[in-house]
Amino acid sequence: MNIADHDSLLSPEELERRLLAIGAERYHNLHPFHRLLHDGKLDRGQVQAWALNRYYYQCRIPAKDASLLARLPTTDLRREWRRRLVDHDGEGTAPGGVERWLRLTSGLGLDNDYVMSLAGLLPGTRFAVDAYVAFVRERTVLEAVASSLTEMFSSKIISERVAGMLRNYSFVDADTLSYFMPRLTQAPADVAFALGYVKTHARTRVEQEGVLGALRFKCDLLWAQLDSLYFAYVAPGLPPPGAFRP
Amino acid sequence: MNIADHDSLLSPEELERRLLAIGAERYHNLHPFHRLLHDGKLDRGQVQAWALNRYYYQCRIPAKDASLLARLPTTDLRREWRRRLVDHDGEGTAPGGVERWLRLTSGLGLDNDYVMSLAGLLPGTRFAVDAYVAFVRERTVLEAVASSLTEMFSSKIISERVAGMLRNYSFVDADTLSYFMPRLTQAPADVAFALGYVKTHARTRVEQEGVLGALRFKCDLLWAQLDSLYFAYVAPGLPPPGAFRP
Repeated sequence: MNIADHDSLLSPEELERRLLAIGAERYHNLHPFHRLLHDGKLDRGQVQAWALNRYYYQCRIPAKDASLLARLPTTDLRREWRRRLVDHDGEGTAPGGVERWLRLTSGLGLDNDYVMSLAGLLPGTRFAVDAYVAFVRERTVLEAVASSLTEMFSSKIISERVAGMLRNYSFVDADTLSYFMPRLTQAPADVAFALGYVKTHARTRVEQEGVLGALRFKCDLLWAQLDSLYFAYVAPGLPPPGAFRP
Repeated sequence: MNIADHDSLLSPEELERRLLAIGAERYHNLHPFHRLLHDGKLDRGQVQAWALNRYYYQCRIPAKDASLLARLPTTDLRREWRRRLVDHDGEGTAPGGVERWLRLTSGLGLDNDYVMSLAGLLPGTRFAVDAYVAFVRERTVLEAVASSLTEMFSSKIISERVAGMLRNYSFVDADTLSYFMPRLTQAPADVAFALGYVKTHARTRVEQEGVLGALRFKCDLLWAQLDSLYFAYVAPGLPPPGAFRP
């Protein structure tokens, strides 16, 4: 990119195009671990390891969203973002995403107390997820909102995942995968707001680059979680001391 | 207090008694500014100054609550605390406390944009409110929860305030005071949870003293806001440069 390119404000449409290009290059559906997962190439213990580690990501999402909500300046913005807390922690008798993820881990034969204790977590999972929570707490509101935009790509991965896992794994059924169904409607609603927000509120090229950087960062941390899983449970297959052993 | 006293765990009932004693001594219903307010001794400009400054407290409450919610470890606790976000930011067509407070300020003749701009705020208001938000963000969850317990005393002050203001001020009507009515049911529900929480979760005397200290801190900051108002708008009546002038 030459200096002129780097100085000029992108149109909102061009900003969106570049966001989509980041997903096409870096979203974790392209990671070899996910290919193995969706194609039915993992055994039950490896799927357990994935679900167990991913639980930490799920259970920290409300902390991430609440810390952003604490910095949003208006009632309207806070109400918009509060919807995410409802989605993840539930409301009334409707379970949220955290509880639905525990249906997945228990459906895979893991004990809820063990999962929630985080005792078997890979350090790489913890560091990546904690980096995400810290990013959202410490960066600008604009970057924090932008970091949620991996949801632009999640509907596709969820559809692939559910279809692939139901087809390929006898130890998985539709109830076990109940986490994913509501996400197919929740994520697009979240994206509609967040994408509109960044297109409107990134008013300089520097801010636009911050938006693009935030999405790259988020893709990186999703990707890094799968690196750790691959190393520990696929090849060479060396879970560190203390981590879950199938 | 002798050393033995200071070392021994209080019963939950004794802890509650000491919390109530703090309110009886330090709650801001005892402040001379509030006596003037409720007894009809202020003019319209002074009531405007009170409502304008108090808006900053109201509008920061969701930030305070969201930053605590971000640190609560379970879905159940977060859902309990999320209720406060709903109370203050509203839900569906029901306005929350922040919006209802603007009905008060506009009913008193203040422009909403001016109020929301915070341009006329007393520095003393800003410092006290910011100290509260920082306290809740930085102290233990137990202390943060305990700092909400001034609501143990708020039903009484609200009843006094509404009755006194309606009786004494021709420029105030029931619609203007619509902020306060929902608080009469919301605050006791909040207290029921928070008081039960601190009685259960303060498991050492040091933690119990932390709970008592948090409530004293909260009383102090409510009190300090009225000190600033008194100095600026009652006696000697010297609002600092830039602050609201009736």
